[in-house]
Amino acid sequence: MINKLIEKIKKTNAPIVVGLDPMLNYVPEHIKQAAYEQYGETPAGAAEAIWQFNKAIVDATSDLIPAVKPQIAMYEQFGVEGVAAFKKTVDYCHEKDLVVIGDVKRGDIGSTSEAYASAHLGSVQIGGMSYAGFDEDFATVNPYLGTDGIKPFVEVCKAHKKGIFILVKTSNPSSGEFQDRLIDGKPLYEHVGEKVAEWGSDCMGDTYSYVGAVVGATYPEQGKIMRAVMPKSFILVPGYGAQGGKGADLVHFFNKDGLGAIVSSSRGIIAAYKQDQYKEKGITPENFADASRLAVEDMIADIAGALEKDR
Amino acid sequence: MINKLIEKIKKTNAPIVVGLDPMLNYVPEHIKQAAYEQYGETPAGAAEAIWQFNKAIVDATSDLIPAVKPQIAMYEQFGVEGVAAFKKTVDYCHEKDLVVIGDVKRGDIGSTSEAYASAHLGSVQIGGMSYAGFDEDFATVNPYLGTDGIKPFVEVCKAHKKGIFILVKTSNPSSGEFQDRLIDGKPLYEHVGEKVAEWGSDCMGDTYSYVGAVVGATYPEQGKIMRAVMPKSFILVPGYGAQGGKGADLVHFFNKDGLGAIVSSSRGIIAAYKQDQYKEKGITPENFADASRLAVEDMIADIAGALEKDR
Repeated sequence: MINKLIEKIKKTNAPIVVGLDPMLNYVPEHIKQAAYEQYGETPAGAAEAIWQFNKAIVDATSDLIPAVKPQIAMYEQFGVEGVAAFKKTVDYCHEKDLVVIGDVKRGDIGSTSEAYASAHLGSVQIGGMSYAGFDEDFATVNPYLGTDGIKPFVEVCKAHKKGIFILVKTSNPSSGEFQDRLIDGKPLYEHVGEKVAEWGSDCMGDTYSYVGAVVGATYPEQGKIMRAVMPKSFILVPGYGAQGGKGADLVHFFNKDGLGAIVSSSRGIIAAYKQDQYKEKGITPENFADASRLAVEDMIADIAGALEKDR
Repeated sequence: MINKLIEKIKKTNAPIVVGLDPMLNYVPEHIKQAAYEQYGETPAGAAEAIWQFNKAIVDATSDLIPAVKPQIAMYEQFGVEGVAAFKKTVDYCHEKDLVVIGDVKRGDIGSTSEAYASAHLGSVQIGGMSYAGFDEDFATVNPYLGTDGIKPFVEVCKAHKKGIFILVKTSNPSSGEFQDRLIDGKPLYEHVGEKVAEWGSDCMGDTYSYVGAVVGATYPEQGKIMRAVMPKSFILVPGYGAQGGKGADLVHFFNKDGLGAIVSSSRGIIAAYKQDQYKEKGITPENFADASRLAVEDMIADIAGALEKDR
């Protein structure tokens, strides 16, 4: 799947991923109203609203982008119906031939990690039949539990040609609280990054590993270091846009081949219709998905410009 | 909810929690067959099988125990239907007046952590209505992202009188890979434990905090240290039984008041019917839930004996 991701990044010339993290207050009123009329002000109604919202954004952007990253928390909050909307979104994105990165940040030990890996990347055996649960292409994984927590994911990645991105240095302000603490003179995130390289070496695609890392756009200096520590790992870079990361911050996350990173933006794209700069271009809540397309184009240009300048 | 947990522990005299982690190969054939006859060898069939399995175990043990701990990974692997079985299990355990600890190990940042907290412990607003998603009483949470990841959970705990257990030192063999690394002369898990105490001080029940910790039974020495570092935090102790932890290892996790810890066992109870010691007492796959009751009684006696000896 890392090969497919790279192929699609090359084809679209867009090392970006659209975060499908639909908060209800991002969803335009007319979509919510239609959903509530059909299902009431219920979890089923909310699930329908976020699904219709996602669908419109995917329809408006899928030819420009290689991948999407639905954040499962935003669906889980609506209970079983929300989780069903997550699955519907994953399936629809696959129909559109998008690579789907499930931002699930799972992580446990032994058979439990195996169950999470099966749920999101693999399949389960039920009697004589085999079924995929959520069937994303990549999943984000938390490293706190160590190799026991990661290996089951790696095994499923190998068997199903899927991939993972392991949290190394997250984009939030307090990420340093534990991740930056020095151990033998190096921050914890660097130790985690070294493990990512080690786990990933066992599990290579054509040029990059199935095992990638998450390093926030808000920490470009750390990105530079981690790029060197994990040369064969793709870096998923959240924190662009709404969280403050800019194109110029991102160059350090890429390798000399122009690859090695995929930059995520959520709010900046899916709620672009709320921004003045797009309102001025004639965007209204009714054509919100057009704003998402414009925002994708702007993000691609911003990153391409920064990479060009860096060359 | 921490008050209710303590009250129920006192009433049952059983500081234990039954892990409802139903692997399909734990479920006796007759239950699977009945479920598959109704729903086919499908995720719906598997979900029905694990639900019937859980129900029988809960019915057989609920008067002896204060709490259950369903591990959501085991349900997620069956996709949306599996997640529905998780919810059904949570609801049924509430009907039986059990405290439900959702072993979900979630953790993210800002609005995403808030969504997870709403999903598992709080509620969401949909139009003019409010709904709880999964509605557990406690959830397990991963600390790797720092305070930004934890605070939204703490806020929801305050608002809804729920609780969390934060991973501090996990029970698995490789937990030390990152957790044991020394930072300023103290292992990472101790730094996390200090934060747990700090986060929890803001959020107290009558005698203990809503914010607890996870420390594996397999690391009794660390348990002793962490007991002192987090005097007001309940410790959820996994790793008893199948993972190797014994009653005698557990005394260090308790405070002088005989409280402060709740010990979890999953396989050792829910799959007890497979053990020779229970087969010898007339247990067959047909009366598997009776074995779970016997195993609960044995576990209670083991821990009570160890605590008695330590007094």
